[in-house]
Amino acid sequence: MSPFPALHGVSLFFFFFTSLYITTEITTVQSQINLWPLPRNISWPNPQATLLSPTFEIILSPALNNHLYLSPAVSRYNLLILTEHYQPVLTPTVNLTNSTLTLQSLTITVADQTAPLHYAVDESYTLNIPTVGSSANLTANTVWGALRGLETFSQLVWGNPSRVMSGLDVWDAPLYGHRGVLLDTARNYYAVSDILRTIKTMSANKLNVFHWHITDSQSFPLVLPSEPELAQKGSYGLAMQYSPEDVKMIVEFGLEHGVRVMPEIDAPGHTGSWAGAYPEIVTCANMFWSPPGTPYADRYASEPGTGQLNPLIPETYEVLKNVINDVAGLFPDPYYHAGADEIVPGCWEADPTIQNYLSNGGTLDQLLETFINSTLPYISSLNRTAVYWEDVMLDATVNVTSSFLPPDKVILQTWNNGPNNTQLIVSKGYRVIVSSADFYYLDCGHGGWLGNDSRYDEQVEDPPGQPFNYVGGDGGSWCDPYKTWQRIYDYDITYGLNETGAKLVLGGEVALWSEQADSTVLDGRIWPRASALGETMWSGNRDETGKKRYAEAINRLNEWRYRMVSRGTMAEPLQPLWCLTHLGMCNLD
Amino acid sequence: MSPFPALHGVSLFFFFFTSLYITTEITTVQSQINLWPLPRNISWPNPQATLLSPTFEIILSPALNNHLYLSPAVSRYNLLILTEHYQPVLTPTVNLTNSTLTLQSLTITVADQTAPLHYAVDESYTLNIPTVGSSANLTANTVWGALRGLETFSQLVWGNPSRVMSGLDVWDAPLYGHRGVLLDTARNYYAVSDILRTIKTMSANKLNVFHWHITDSQSFPLVLPSEPELAQKGSYGLAMQYSPEDVKMIVEFGLEHGVRVMPEIDAPGHTGSWAGAYPEIVTCANMFWSPPGTPYADRYASEPGTGQLNPLIPETYEVLKNVINDVAGLFPDPYYHAGADEIVPGCWEADPTIQNYLSNGGTLDQLLETFINSTLPYISSLNRTAVYWEDVMLDATVNVTSSFLPPDKVILQTWNNGPNNTQLIVSKGYRVIVSSADFYYLDCGHGGWLGNDSRYDEQVEDPPGQPFNYVGGDGGSWCDPYKTWQRIYDYDITYGLNETGAKLVLGGEVALWSEQADSTVLDGRIWPRASALGETMWSGNRDETGKKRYAEAINRLNEWRYRMVSRGTMAEPLQPLWCLTHLGMCNLD
Repeated sequence: MSPFPALHGVSLFFFFFTSLYITTEITTVQSQINLWPLPRNISWPNPQATLLSPTFEIILSPALNNHLYLSPAVSRYNLLILTEHYQPVLTPTVNLTNSTLTLQSLTITVADQTAPLHYAVDESYTLNIPTVGSSANLTANTVWGALRGLETFSQLVWGNPSRVMSGLDVWDAPLYGHRGVLLDTARNYYAVSDILRTIKTMSANKLNVFHWHITDSQSFPLVLPSEPELAQKGSYGLAMQYSPEDVKMIVEFGLEHGVRVMPEIDAPGHTGSWAGAYPEIVTCANMFWSPPGTPYADRYASEPGTGQLNPLIPETYEVLKNVINDVAGLFPDPYYHAGADEIVPGCWEADPTIQNYLSNGGTLDQLLETFINSTLPYISSLNRTAVYWEDVMLDATVNVTSSFLPPDKVILQTWNNGPNNTQLIVSKGYRVIVSSADFYYLDCGHGGWLGNDSRYDEQVEDPPGQPFNYVGGDGGSWCDPYKTWQRIYDYDITYGLNETGAKLVLGGEVALWSEQADSTVLDGRIWPRASALGETMWSGNRDETGKKRYAEAINRLNEWRYRMVSRGTMAEPLQPLWCLTHLGMCNLD
Repeated sequence: MSPFPALHGVSLFFFFFTSLYITTEITTVQSQINLWPLPRNISWPNPQATLLSPTFEIILSPALNNHLYLSPAVSRYNLLILTEHYQPVLTPTVNLTNSTLTLQSLTITVADQTAPLHYAVDESYTLNIPTVGSSANLTANTVWGALRGLETFSQLVWGNPSRVMSGLDVWDAPLYGHRGVLLDTARNYYAVSDILRTIKTMSANKLNVFHWHITDSQSFPLVLPSEPELAQKGSYGLAMQYSPEDVKMIVEFGLEHGVRVMPEIDAPGHTGSWAGAYPEIVTCANMFWSPPGTPYADRYASEPGTGQLNPLIPETYEVLKNVINDVAGLFPDPYYHAGADEIVPGCWEADPTIQNYLSNGGTLDQLLETFINSTLPYISSLNRTAVYWEDVMLDATVNVTSSFLPPDKVILQTWNNGPNNTQLIVSKGYRVIVSSADFYYLDCGHGGWLGNDSRYDEQVEDPPGQPFNYVGGDGGSWCDPYKTWQRIYDYDITYGLNETGAKLVLGGEVALWSEQADSTVLDGRIWPRASALGETMWSGNRDETGKKRYAEAINRLNEWRYRMVSRGTMAEPLQPLWCLTHLGMCNLD
């Protein structure tokens, strides 16, 4: 894989501006076509619909018939298309061409059947649905592009009997190659079925990277062949583990849905759960995270619970290399997310060996350098690009200089300071994945979750204008307020970058950290807000005139939300249903 | 029914302080007994558990055997107790008495079998579970008290084979007689099954009033025998209506669960949906709510959509009296909530007849007086106490003086200004139901929901300390931030009141307004935060020393949340599961 992106937001963005040939029809079209994400290019000069034959079938060329991933996807879409009979909230008013003509098939042609699902693989496709003619055509350079086109086709079908928009040509391709959802399965556990449903819904939103934050201080649910004790003693119990077979199923399911599964094993911080199996390699494990009377700067963890790997102990690397090797075996994706965020000095400083090291002139930065130098080459040796949280280089207290992080072997993921850190990272020549907490964190705005919080014991509301008053201000959520779909949709991840810098932006991820989430509320926390990311990463957030298109987008997103619900994903409602039947009446102005 | 409360927070509160005889055992007890809400009084000198007989049965005295509401409740609890086999996250460590002795039965004795489920009905009970002995005893003055005791008993049972805490005496009774959850079924629709599940879970939390905000400007889902066109033309469609049979089922289900169903038909504001059937009685219907260029003070509604009943038109009262009469027929509860909140001057002023009235010297206040005078006596004539939102008297722009609102016929529900308005209302001699938006609104902190909101198009996070910057401040939610369980739990609804004032506080309600909620996310929005209200209204938020007990409560609430989930209510998690297995480690300090 090329270390630098073949797709880049800025240049494709200009292409988007100049090539789009929908113009004034957009308003009419949008009430008829509720595609999400909106394709880059739709031509529909005479809006019509055609009945779908009850024997409609998707036809693959013989060479593709047994394709490991496309073939099951075709079976799945064929069933969906024939049986969904989705009834949009606003019934499309397009005329049927001629009720005796029905669409018999969709024929798929793929140029390159072997391109793997890696970053920047070609996901483009063209889709042509004729007004008169028995077959529609879907053409793509790769099977992954064909998957995207199948989803688009499925969203053009509605009603009972089923009909499909016709006389329509679509050309489509993503602006960004990395379009992800991060799920933290360590603070709370999610069933395998939750993960599969999330991947399925990601695919329907043309999102293509499931960033699986598998482990953290609270639990280690992943059963590893070489290190089974980590899960045995670090998971929430036998019923809350992911076996190698589970992982295999999830990875395969991802491939059948065009979704990469990128594993994250966070280290050296966020590793308290490793202490069950290996107490000797974890500093400050099982300590109270922020003892009374201790300055906040000296706390043991950024949140309960505590624990960091000790970079000075050889056994740390024996265990960690087993982990990395096992994970690389389980997850074929070329990216390995190695974490390295939020190293808390107090936790290392609580350890006698480290105290000794520091008193002999060693520094915290050197500890991290040792750790990176002892692990990054190993990750690279397994043909994995290491993804680190930006902290590894940008943390104010503990970091390494860029000389330890070769830009061809490392990608940084940003979460602090919005566009400023993105700019800082690309200015140093690194590729970046954007998951700014100010815009993309799905857990924000849900109040505090720590117990015994006397700040809530307040009988009179704080007056406005006092943001530092706890409850009247942020309500206890460090990244308050809640990020709405519009907040996510409107963010430009290359804001303030020049063309060179913008090319280093691989894409973005929304993130659900699970302190206050588990299976019970998963769908509503992620959807439809991750759909907003899906569109802004795929075809952008602007119309053909360059104007932000959020006013038009909500109508499609509302309809898409109801369709996701009907497909089994409990996406939350964005507005009263009344707003869907009274288009534009729920706008601000 | 007495117009003044027989239960009152303050006096019982002192009683609570002086009579409780658990003292130092509380810490031990709390890790063994995860009752929610905590009873007022538990004596458990020697914590033990007894196996439940596989043929365990709840025995009603013959006179109660066919009780309309208690009898089905007994069947329900008998099944639950025998089949639940709930496994707490932390397994209780109490010893089994003797595995050959099993508890054979729970015998229920009720003094008054006929007391109706009205405000301030006696809900007290005593429960005795012997260490040696074949039957436990539950004694109550009313069937409603027996229901509360059955729930307590069910929460003392766990494991497989089932065992029950024994050697235990409970005396229990609520601090407040009105303990409610408001659900708005007009902004978005909820299935009857959602409402039933909500009522079931309320009962498990000893909450006793389902405040059903049935109708609003967005929809009128209630099918009324005398006015069927209101739902026919004002609901979201045939599949999103509540038939008289649905209502009957919900009311009966409520009675079997000890939960009153208090209907609210909001008027004269929030009535846009009435215009489908009766356009002539609704002013400003179907107008854009806040036209560009119009000052916010002159908008047509506080949110989309628009519409207020016209107080000057006789037909308004013909329709409304039919509605009130039908609703009184469908809902036996002695309270009728008549709304009267958020009257927007611009909507009335948009109407020619009202313009004429105003230009002839009439005032907006007089319009509201006319409306109240034309409807309140009718409500009273049906033996209903009218509940109004506080706006009717306290709104800054349109209100009536207290002379129009006889305190023996009217209860006010407060939602603004926290304790200040509670104080204002009781100072005028009114009974009050507290649902302060600052503490009890469950929809807050979820961002804005209006479309086309350019304020989200912001690429750089606002600096801290700028609360009026839209996105960096409240995120678009007018009542930001999100109200956490601790926020709800810690609020004292009689704060700042003297004893006379406190006696007028009937209780409290948490409220879920449904602009951003429907079936998909209902459970997680309400639970377990409404559980926090359940306990603070039932047995208070302080321990026996008078100290707020939130630090202890979260352990019980965490366990109770998992039990609610296992019983089928998708309550959201409050913390990582790790916090439940590491008690106290997730505290602030």
